[in-house]
Amino acid sequence: MTEPLQPAAPIDFYFDFSSPYGYFAAEKIDALAARHGRTVLWHPFLLGVTFKVTGLAPLPTIPLKGAYSLHDIERSARYFGLPFRQPSVFPIPTQHAARAFLWLNDRNPARAKAFGLAAYRAYFVDDVNISDLGALLDIASAQGVDRDELSAVLAGTEIKARLAAEVDLGLARGVFGSPFVFVDGEAFWGADRLPQLERWLAEGGF
Amino acid sequence: MTEPLQPAAPIDFYFDFSSPYGYFAAEKIDALAARHGRTVLWHPFLLGVTFKVTGLAPLPTIPLKGAYSLHDIERSARYFGLPFRQPSVFPIPTQHAARAFLWLNDRNPARAKAFGLAAYRAYFVDDVNISDLGALLDIASAQGVDRDELSAVLAGTEIKARLAAEVDLGLARGVFGSPFVFVDGEAFWGADRLPQLERWLAEGGF
Repeated sequence: MTEPLQPAAPIDFYFDFSSPYGYFAAEKIDALAARHGRTVLWHPFLLGVTFKVTGLAPLPTIPLKGAYSLHDIERSARYFGLPFRQPSVFPIPTQHAARAFLWLNDRNPARAKAFGLAAYRAYFVDDVNISDLGALLDIASAQGVDRDELSAVLAGTEIKARLAAEVDLGLARGVFGSPFVFVDGEAFWGADRLPQLERWLAEGGF
Repeated sequence: MTEPLQPAAPIDFYFDFSSPYGYFAAEKIDALAARHGRTVLWHPFLLGVTFKVTGLAPLPTIPLKGAYSLHDIERSARYFGLPFRQPSVFPIPTQHAARAFLWLNDRNPARAKAFGLAAYRAYFVDDVNISDLGALLDIASAQGVDRDELSAVLAGTEIKARLAAEVDLGLARGVFGSPFVFVDGEAFWGADRLPQLERWLAEGGF
């Protein structure tokens, strides 16, 4: 008897729109996965919720580590070969962006990823404050999303419950940072774990 | 006029003996530096002191992040090709080890590094609790250090003041974690920044 060939399971990619390391990973993860025959499911996430569980705080607020991190983010962008400009407001609340992404993703994952990358680039390259609803709707509209429809969705309660459930599911899986990736149950936290992730995919674990 | 050729400045490497990522870097840093014509000055450091400044806590105590980190440490050891066994007592106070290292380093840096690696391997491979003074003296003795002389040094006040000054100097330079490396004033935190450090050395910055 031969086993039927099963396609490899998708990778799960958790990210917060206010996370620069999440932006770096978002720019890399689909191509990395494709090199090993994998697709990627994107999961918008809210770091603020995890901070209540872990007792951690946003990087810029931590003495010594905050100053280092702002420098490390700029250097890491150059290391990854990605454009980056430190946003003038950082960090920001990302509920609107996460809900918009989730609503789009439930309908058209490819369009959701295009919107997600556009939102990340607006915030981390062009210094657009994507916590502003009007700015966010402009970005979605430029990606072919119906602005009025998305505006109505974001004003409703359904998408709020949908995001809360998604974040709860992430917490239950152990997500505490951004980016956070699962490959066949193996967890990788941080853009700096992409080399380990790639080796894991290439070798089927190590 | 030609400028006289100056030898490249040594790299500064800060580490805590209770830090597994510090152990990984300690095993790699001298060879990495040598590939680019650099030597390394080792600086023993006390993370407990930085926790008071940053408000951070030892990894194993942090909800979600602690469990992930224990797994990441074991996987990172395999990634780096280094032997590792999670110590049964972790973390531990490392003042004795740091003071012994510092005293040796002031006399013979090569012997200090051999002792430092032996102490790291005892703790992270053979599960020897190096916060125990007798165990620590055994390790030093096996490296050719006079056991009675080192024992007397560690009982004195001079080496305590010497370590306190070294840690204060590190804090003043911005050290908040282990490993922490400076190359010509550029700071790199974490074993996962060794690739960025190597590129920095190869290209003279990026």
